[in-house]
Amino acid sequence: MGAHRVVVVGGGFAGLDVVRGLADADVDITLLDRRNHHLFQPLLYQVATASLSPSEIAWPLRHILRRQRNVRIIMATVTDVDPAAKEVLLEDQTRVPYDTLVLATGAQHAYFGHDEWEQFAPGLKTLEDAIGIRRKLLLALEAAEREPDPEKREALLTFAIIGAGPTGVEMAGSMIELGRASIQDQFRAIRPDDLRVVLIEGGDRVLSNFDDDLSDYTLKSLQQLGVHVELGQMVKAIDADGVTFGDQRLPAKTVIWAAGVAASPVAKWIGAEADKAGRVLVAPNLTAPGKPDIFVIGDVASIKNPDGSPVPGLAPAAKQQGAYVAKVISARVAGNAAPEPFRYKHAGSLATIGKRSAVIDFGWTKFRGWFAWWIWGVAHIYFLVDLKNRIFVLLSWLWISLTGQRSARLITHGRAPSHTPLDEVEDG
Amino acid sequence: MGAHRVVVVGGGFAGLDVVRGLADADVDITLLDRRNHHLFQPLLYQVATASLSPSEIAWPLRHILRRQRNVRIIMATVTDVDPAAKEVLLEDQTRVPYDTLVLATGAQHAYFGHDEWEQFAPGLKTLEDAIGIRRKLLLALEAAEREPDPEKREALLTFAIIGAGPTGVEMAGSMIELGRASIQDQFRAIRPDDLRVVLIEGGDRVLSNFDDDLSDYTLKSLQQLGVHVELGQMVKAIDADGVTFGDQRLPAKTVIWAAGVAASPVAKWIGAEADKAGRVLVAPNLTAPGKPDIFVIGDVASIKNPDGSPVPGLAPAAKQQGAYVAKVISARVAGNAAPEPFRYKHAGSLATIGKRSAVIDFGWTKFRGWFAWWIWGVAHIYFLVDLKNRIFVLLSWLWISLTGQRSARLITHGRAPSHTPLDEVEDG
Repeated sequence: MGAHRVVVVGGGFAGLDVVRGLADADVDITLLDRRNHHLFQPLLYQVATASLSPSEIAWPLRHILRRQRNVRIIMATVTDVDPAAKEVLLEDQTRVPYDTLVLATGAQHAYFGHDEWEQFAPGLKTLEDAIGIRRKLLLALEAAEREPDPEKREALLTFAIIGAGPTGVEMAGSMIELGRASIQDQFRAIRPDDLRVVLIEGGDRVLSNFDDDLSDYTLKSLQQLGVHVELGQMVKAIDADGVTFGDQRLPAKTVIWAAGVAASPVAKWIGAEADKAGRVLVAPNLTAPGKPDIFVIGDVASIKNPDGSPVPGLAPAAKQQGAYVAKVISARVAGNAAPEPFRYKHAGSLATIGKRSAVIDFGWTKFRGWFAWWIWGVAHIYFLVDLKNRIFVLLSWLWISLTGQRSARLITHGRAPSHTPLDEVEDG
Repeated sequence: MGAHRVVVVGGGFAGLDVVRGLADADVDITLLDRRNHHLFQPLLYQVATASLSPSEIAWPLRHILRRQRNVRIIMATVTDVDPAAKEVLLEDQTRVPYDTLVLATGAQHAYFGHDEWEQFAPGLKTLEDAIGIRRKLLLALEAAEREPDPEKREALLTFAIIGAGPTGVEMAGSMIELGRASIQDQFRAIRPDDLRVVLIEGGDRVLSNFDDDLSDYTLKSLQQLGVHVELGQMVKAIDADGVTFGDQRLPAKTVIWAAGVAASPVAKWIGAEADKAGRVLVAPNLTAPGKPDIFVIGDVASIKNPDGSPVPGLAPAAKQQGAYVAKVISARVAGNAAPEPFRYKHAGSLATIGKRSAVIDFGWTKFRGWFAWWIWGVAHIYFLVDLKNRIFVLLSWLWISLTGQRSARLITHGRAPSHTPLDEVEDG
C-alpha cells in the first residue's frame, strides 16, 4: 500500500503486456476490463467459422495473471476519465484513482457514417460477434435446406464479406470451406456448388498492406477456392436482403463487415487530439500530449514510424507498446532515466487463405502457399497464452485436417428458422 | 420416395436412437428439432461449472447422422400434431405429413405452480442454461470481489441449489470446487472459505433413488467438501435476494433449480391421458393409447416396469426406448411379427460428488469413492458421441486433475457487474 498506483484500462494485447511488464515493479496495478477474458483476436475468424471453440482462444484475465500479486482485476465498464482529479469513472459512478493511467481500450467496427448497416452486417471483434456470425452462417444453411423458392434459396446461400484486408480474406477462405464441407456431407436439399461467397473491396487489390505479388497470389488463391472477388467496388447500401455496390445489387441474407474500425472514445475522455479514426496522436514515449501521466497504446493510439509510415494495428505492435510502457513506468518509479522513444519493430504480416495456404511478408523475405501456412500455424500456436490452449488448438487443427470435420458447429442463443428466418433470428 | 414416412420429433437420446435404429429400414425419416445439436445432458453440469466447453458435449445432429441417407433433418419448432390428418405442425404453419410419428421431446423444468421462480432460479436442461448458469456463478464472484458491504458480499458468495437428486448433488460438488479453486488463486478481496454452497432438499435424504447407505455416503462426502445440506426443507419463496425454506431465510444472489421437471406438452398435442408430470401413459409397445401410429418415448412417456416401479428418466432408458421403437417400426414396414412388449433393463444409477468421488448403484453391486468415479468417467467418455469428443473430454479432465485449472471460465453474453450487479446482468 502506498505504492505508485497504475490503472490499466483494457486487457487486450497492449494492456496485458503493460501489466505483465510491471510484475517486478513497486506499483499497485488495477486492471479494468468490461469482459472477464483476454481474447486472441487473430484466431477469432476460426470461431466464427466453427473451427475452434470460444474457450480455445480466450482466457480469463484472472487466470492469466493469477501469479502476479501486485495486480487487482475489476470487471467493469469505464465511461470517462477525470484527468484533473486523476480518476477513472466507472459505469456505476465509482471512481478509481490513479497516479499513472494506461488507456488500451482497442477498436470497434466503424461503418463510415452508416451505423444503420451494423444490424445487417456484423463485424468481428468479440467472442459474442464470432458466436453470432457462426449462428448466422449455420442458420442460413438450415433455412436454405428448407426453402422451396429458388430465388430465396440463392439469397440464403450467398455470403457477402465487405473488406478484403486480412480479416475479410481469412473469413472468405474459411467460410467457403466451412460452407461447402458442411453442405457436402450434411445437407440433402442443397449442394456445395450452390454456395456463393462474395468478397467486396473498395480498393483495387486484396491485402493492400502486402506486396503486390502476394496480393495477386491471394486473389488467385481465393478464386481457386471459389470465392467471387469484387475489387474497386464501394458499398452503397446494406439491408436485410443484400448489398448494393457500384451498379450491382447482390441479394444476400448474410453480410459480414470487415471494412473498417475506429478507436474507442478515449480521445474524448482525456480531451486529446485524435486522427479521423479516433486515435490519439501520442508523444514519442506514448503519452497523451501534455499529459505525461496518461499513456495511450494499441489500437487507440496513432503512432508514426521514423519513415513517416503509421505503426499498424496488429497484435505485435500492441504488445511492443505494452512492454515499452511498462519499461517507462518502471524507470519512473525506480527513479531511473527514461528509455529511448518507442520504436516499432515490424515482424511481418500474415494472412491465411483457407486451411492450406497463407501469405507472409517479412519485409526481407516472403512466403506463400502451404509452407507459409505452416509458419502461420506454428507462430499462432506459439503466441497462444497457455499450454493447454496450444495443445487443444493444435489437436483441433489436426483433427480438421485429417477428417475435415469442424466440431464447433453449434448454434446457441438462436431460434429455429421458419420460412422467413433471418429477420427473426437476429433477435435471438 | 413413396417409402413409409417416419417423423421423429426431438434429437435427444430417445429420438436419435430411433433414427439410428432405422438406418437399414425401408423408410423416409424426417427428424425435427428446435436446435441443431444433440446434447449429452449427463455432463451438462460440467459446462455450467466451467470444466468443459459447450462443443465438448454437443454435436450437430447433421454431423452425427451425416452417413445415414434415409434421414432428412429440419431445424424447426413443432407446435402441434394433427392425428386425424397425420401431420405435424411447425411454428411457421408448415405441415409435415407422417405415416408413423415418434414424439421424443423431453422434459423441461417445473416449478410446481411457481413459474415466477424461474427468473431467479434457472434450471439446467440446455446448453444456453449451462452457459447462463456459468455466467451467473462467475459474475457473482466478480461482483463479490468489488463489494465493500460484508452482508451483500455474503449474499453474492452464497450459492443455493434446490433439489438433491443427481443433478443437484453433482452441481453442488462441482460448484464448491470451482468456486474455491477460482477464489484461491485468482481473487484478492475474497477468500475460498467465504464461499457457501447450500443444497436444499424437500425429502429426508440426498439421492433418494439410490440405496440408503449410498445416500448417507453422499451426504457425508458433500459435507466434507464443505457443502451445507438442508434436508426435509420445502422451499416457500425464491426472489432476487434469496430463498425462504422452512422457517429460514437464506440471502443468496445465485439460486439454481434442480428440483423438478415436467414433460413437454405432447399429451395435449395428441389428446392423450397424462400423469401429473405431463407424461403420456403409453401402451406396452410405447404407442399412445388408441393411436398405434404414434410412439411416445423418453421423458415424455410414463412407463412401468413389470414390478410396478416407474422406468426412470435416465439416458439409458431413453436410448433403450428409442432402439425398441426402431425395431417395432422396422418389423411393421417389413411385415414381420411385432416384437415383445418393451422391457427396461436397468444398467445402474451413477452420480459424482466433486471430481474425486462418485456413487454407483448397479443393483447387484455398489461402488463409492474414487473407484466409482473412475467407472463413472470411463462410462461417460464411452457414451460420448464421437471420437474427437472422447479425446478432448478426456484431455480436459486430465488437465483439470493435473493442474486444477478449469479453462472454460468464460463469461459471454453478459455485462460487467456494477455495484448492483445481478439484477441487470440477468438480461445480458
